[in-house]
Amino acid sequence: MTDSTFKRFSDPEIAAVYRAIRERRDMRHFTGAPVDADQMARLIDAAHHAPSVGFMQPWRFVRITDRTLRVALHDIVETERRATAEALNERSDEFMRLKVQGILDCGEVVVVGLMEDRERHIFGRRTLPEMDLASVACAIQNIWLAARAEGLGLGWVSLFDVGAVQRLLHMPSDAKPVAILCIGHVEHFYDEPMLQAEGWAKRVPTSLCVEENRWPEALPHPDA
Amino acid sequence: MTDSTFKRFSDPEIAAVYRAIRERRDMRHFTGAPVDADQMARLIDAAHHAPSVGFMQPWRFVRITDRTLRVALHDIVETERRATAEALNERSDEFMRLKVQGILDCGEVVVVGLMEDRERHIFGRRTLPEMDLASVACAIQNIWLAARAEGLGLGWVSLFDVGAVQRLLHMPSDAKPVAILCIGHVEHFYDEPMLQAEGWAKRVPTSLCVEENRWPEALPHPDA
Repeated sequence: MTDSTFKRFSDPEIAAVYRAIRERRDMRHFTGAPVDADQMARLIDAAHHAPSVGFMQPWRFVRITDRTLRVALHDIVETERRATAEALNERSDEFMRLKVQGILDCGEVVVVGLMEDRERHIFGRRTLPEMDLASVACAIQNIWLAARAEGLGLGWVSLFDVGAVQRLLHMPSDAKPVAILCIGHVEHFYDEPMLQAEGWAKRVPTSLCVEENRWPEALPHPDA
Repeated sequence: MTDSTFKRFSDPEIAAVYRAIRERRDMRHFTGAPVDADQMARLIDAAHHAPSVGFMQPWRFVRITDRTLRVALHDIVETERRATAEALNERSDEFMRLKVQGILDCGEVVVVGLMEDRERHIFGRRTLPEMDLASVACAIQNIWLAARAEGLGLGWVSLFDVGAVQRLLHMPSDAKPVAILCIGHVEHFYDEPMLQAEGWAKRVPTSLCVEENRWPEALPHPDA
């Protein structure tokens, strides 16, 4: 095996990585079956191998195994769902309800947050302090892809009041929740993104998102 | 093949996804060989299949093929490198230099930015408007993993003045550059994260980043 073939994965391996990328879905329907503890450990470990700005590893994970806590999280999300539905004139009401229900139905709920005391990390963040969130998002994408490969669905819920989740989990004021992840077994994966199936928005042609040497033209809004 | 085996990838496919996650590195050394146009198209397409909040697809990509533009980007990053080195008392000077040099050496430079006119996208962003950046980060992680599988290195540079890059690429004021990606062929991938090899910080044990039903204890800083 030459050094060059070692660097490049085998064709089936490359295909597997692209398959995970293409077949990953933001899932809202779950069977309720529990997730194996070993699987959860692999998913968290995948997250922890994400890139992070200045190697600051800003991600923290809270596994919600207490049903009372899970119901309390659901209530926080339900409150925000109503506020968002009002702001959107109920346009998204039906599938937002599903997302909220997913918190009660899925095998595992994990709250992901930005760690406390991040301000001393300057490397790569002097002009872009929000790179800590970018790192956490990469970690969640790792979980998402690994879960898809393992046959588990994941939904990222960002419909919540930050202060309410901070208080519920007794988080330090400078730590910040950014995701409630619903993870679990599913009957089947959606063939296309659910928001596209529901007519909320369509995928923009890839070519319209990229341009050479200049900023691309503004696109019509995907939900126009 | 049962429905269940269809949902779950095959064992070799699962292993390939985890391999990409574990062997992905933030690369700073490149051979300078050009990247095949088809490969670049696959990478951008992988990015475009990332999740996005409310399916808003906020990512835009500018491929820098004009050498003058690339050198101008390099100069912007070099200026910020000096400012950061000063803020850090030169602690990171050596490997930051490598990062800057990568912009000149790599096969492809791609600027990734948040599209203009994002404020009308409310779904999933009413309380967390920064979810647009989270979506772009997921897109970049897709590129990163796909590139690793294809044997290409990637480095995410966030050492730049946002306004300077906006002006250079004539971006609308409400669009925002968040990454200068250096993509290209490499001699070899680092065995461990370069910042760990350089003694800048160590990987925190995974178990310390996760807790059940409560926020994890604050950790000693990884660079302490």
